[in-house]
Amino acid sequence: MTPPEPVETRTTTPAAGRSAQTATLAEIAREAGVSAPTVSKVLNGRADVAPATRSRVEELLRAHGYRRRRAEASRSPLIDLVFHELESAWALEVIRGVENVARGAGLSVVLSESAGRLTPGRTWADQVAARRPHGVILVLSGLDESQRALLTSRSIPFVVMDPAGDPGVDVPSIGATNWQGGLAATRHLIELGHTRIGAITGPSRMMCSRARVDGYRAALETAGLPVDPALIATGDFHHEAGYRQGLELLRRPDRPTAVFALNDLQALGLYEAARELGLRIPEDLSVVGFDDLPVARWVGPPLTSVRQPLTEMAEAAARLVLDLGREEAPVATRVELATSLVVRSSTAPPPA
Amino acid sequence: MTPPEPVETRTTTPAAGRSAQTATLAEIAREAGVSAPTVSKVLNGRADVAPATRSRVEELLRAHGYRRRRAEASRSPLIDLVFHELESAWALEVIRGVENVARGAGLSVVLSESAGRLTPGRTWADQVAARRPHGVILVLSGLDESQRALLTSRSIPFVVMDPAGDPGVDVPSIGATNWQGGLAATRHLIELGHTRIGAITGPSRMMCSRARVDGYRAALETAGLPVDPALIATGDFHHEAGYRQGLELLRRPDRPTAVFALNDLQALGLYEAARELGLRIPEDLSVVGFDDLPVARWVGPPLTSVRQPLTEMAEAAARLVLDLGREEAPVATRVELATSLVVRSSTAPPPA
Repeated sequence: MTPPEPVETRTTTPAAGRSAQTATLAEIAREAGVSAPTVSKVLNGRADVAPATRSRVEELLRAHGYRRRRAEASRSPLIDLVFHELESAWALEVIRGVENVARGAGLSVVLSESAGRLTPGRTWADQVAARRPHGVILVLSGLDESQRALLTSRSIPFVVMDPAGDPGVDVPSIGATNWQGGLAATRHLIELGHTRIGAITGPSRMMCSRARVDGYRAALETAGLPVDPALIATGDFHHEAGYRQGLELLRRPDRPTAVFALNDLQALGLYEAARELGLRIPEDLSVVGFDDLPVARWVGPPLTSVRQPLTEMAEAAARLVLDLGREEAPVATRVELATSLVVRSSTAPPPA
Repeated sequence: MTPPEPVETRTTTPAAGRSAQTATLAEIAREAGVSAPTVSKVLNGRADVAPATRSRVEELLRAHGYRRRRAEASRSPLIDLVFHELESAWALEVIRGVENVARGAGLSVVLSESAGRLTPGRTWADQVAARRPHGVILVLSGLDESQRALLTSRSIPFVVMDPAGDPGVDVPSIGATNWQGGLAATRHLIELGHTRIGAITGPSRMMCSRARVDGYRAALETAGLPVDPALIATGDFHHEAGYRQGLELLRRPDRPTAVFALNDLQALGLYEAARELGLRIPEDLSVVGFDDLPVARWVGPPLTSVRQPLTEMAEAAARLVLDLGREEAPVATRVELATSLVVRSSTAPPPA
């Protein structure tokens, strides 16, 4: 796995807003009291470096803001794609988008799952440093400070797709217009005549969920309707939460006549809750999802949903990370692709 | 990407049933009229070898049945996973299984799509040879003769999951008991009292489809029911085919009262066709799927389906390929995991 040492000892142009890089690889070696090839081994993620030496070198690399020069030739023909969790057809749409761009560029895609943690583990970062991909795409997850430093020192660019947290203005990211989508979903229900409109949210630490809820609130407020906190249930974007919170909402004496489920899987859970309670969709209950996964068209009744262009978002993320690797200044490092409401048969005027 | 040359010039123990390996790397070099490092470059997938030289060397490697010795240390910590096509939640279940085993072994998964071709392209095989994964898992696809030779000469083991064609007895493979599943699905419908039972098949080149259809036929024949070719429609395992062929079947004057859809996506297409024609499931039409994807539980009515343990199959495939790489003799190189019928609400006695 370790390539012959293409030792890069020259400094790079400092990134805008960062302090200029001050040390060469040789200087870092001197300061750490090791040889230049040892520093190079650390950079290449080789295992044959003592842990103490390694952390001393990593520390100095970070302190000096060391960046390897662009080294196209020594990169592996890979793109790393990291998921928060590999669930639902959602992930598949994203994989397909990254595959499309990777294939066109002659690259293969390495897939990892951060297994529910919102930042992938330390071992992961070491593996990435060792395999030297053209770039890293993080989906619904982020990097901690030391992981960012590690990738930056190896000049491995990264892009966050649909950031879970707040990645910071200097982190390139691709998202969708979640707020607009929440607004459009809720306005559609208001225009049909609904006034008691519930919502089942995603996890509050996910910005995409917050943005959708804020869009929902904005639609109610601008229509002069009250925002009833009792009708906003906290979910987690999984089917089970839609079912469980759906039962709660629908068992209320003043139950909502419409619910914005914030994603399609929760909408399907809500379908199940409605079936169980003998409520018909859309006659007794209108439902709007978000994502517009293929399954939205297939369920009965077909689901009205806010389409999120997941494949296109993933393609944009892959193109952006490759641009960054070529040190081409991208047009923008924060892009939101438009969402659009797709009206099907799960929404109708409220029962008289 | 190219590792320092860990030149392996020794012969290997010939595999059972193969002719003994006769040539060392040095002998192949001599015969090809090139240096040993050049042969080594070809084995490592390096680009800096003239195409003519390269094909001469490949030809000799193949002719001599050359096999690199096990070279654990020089392998990349990767497993290659190749899909026929990256569609439906089906693929995700498989990815998850391979990820589970890979993570436990400290490996990452490289994902490729053969993009509808049943064997991945030549470039793909070169890329695999160059990145030297611990093994390759092919899903619903196979390898041609030269690709097999290429991987074998590099001692990169491979396993086929759910073979599309007939991979040959010496190709390690993991599947499910498709025939038993087709039998169980159809017997369930017969026991409910149905006598006119249709089927929507997958592509006839896929063995899993053939096996399911044969199980369907066997159930009818052993129950003394006629097999009516007019009730067997050819599909392709996609939603659209289930819808289109479903409309055809259900518009017949002697329409079936039950349909075995051969996979869940076609069953969902059939749901749509039934809705369009105003037929209720299960009152007017019983439907059985195959795969038992998560969506089977979520649709209305929840779908009776033959569960295929996709994640477990993928885990078994990953473990098998790693065993082969360690040159541990696996218990068996053709394993079929059991399917089981999951009865939900889409099946009922036929209308009176």
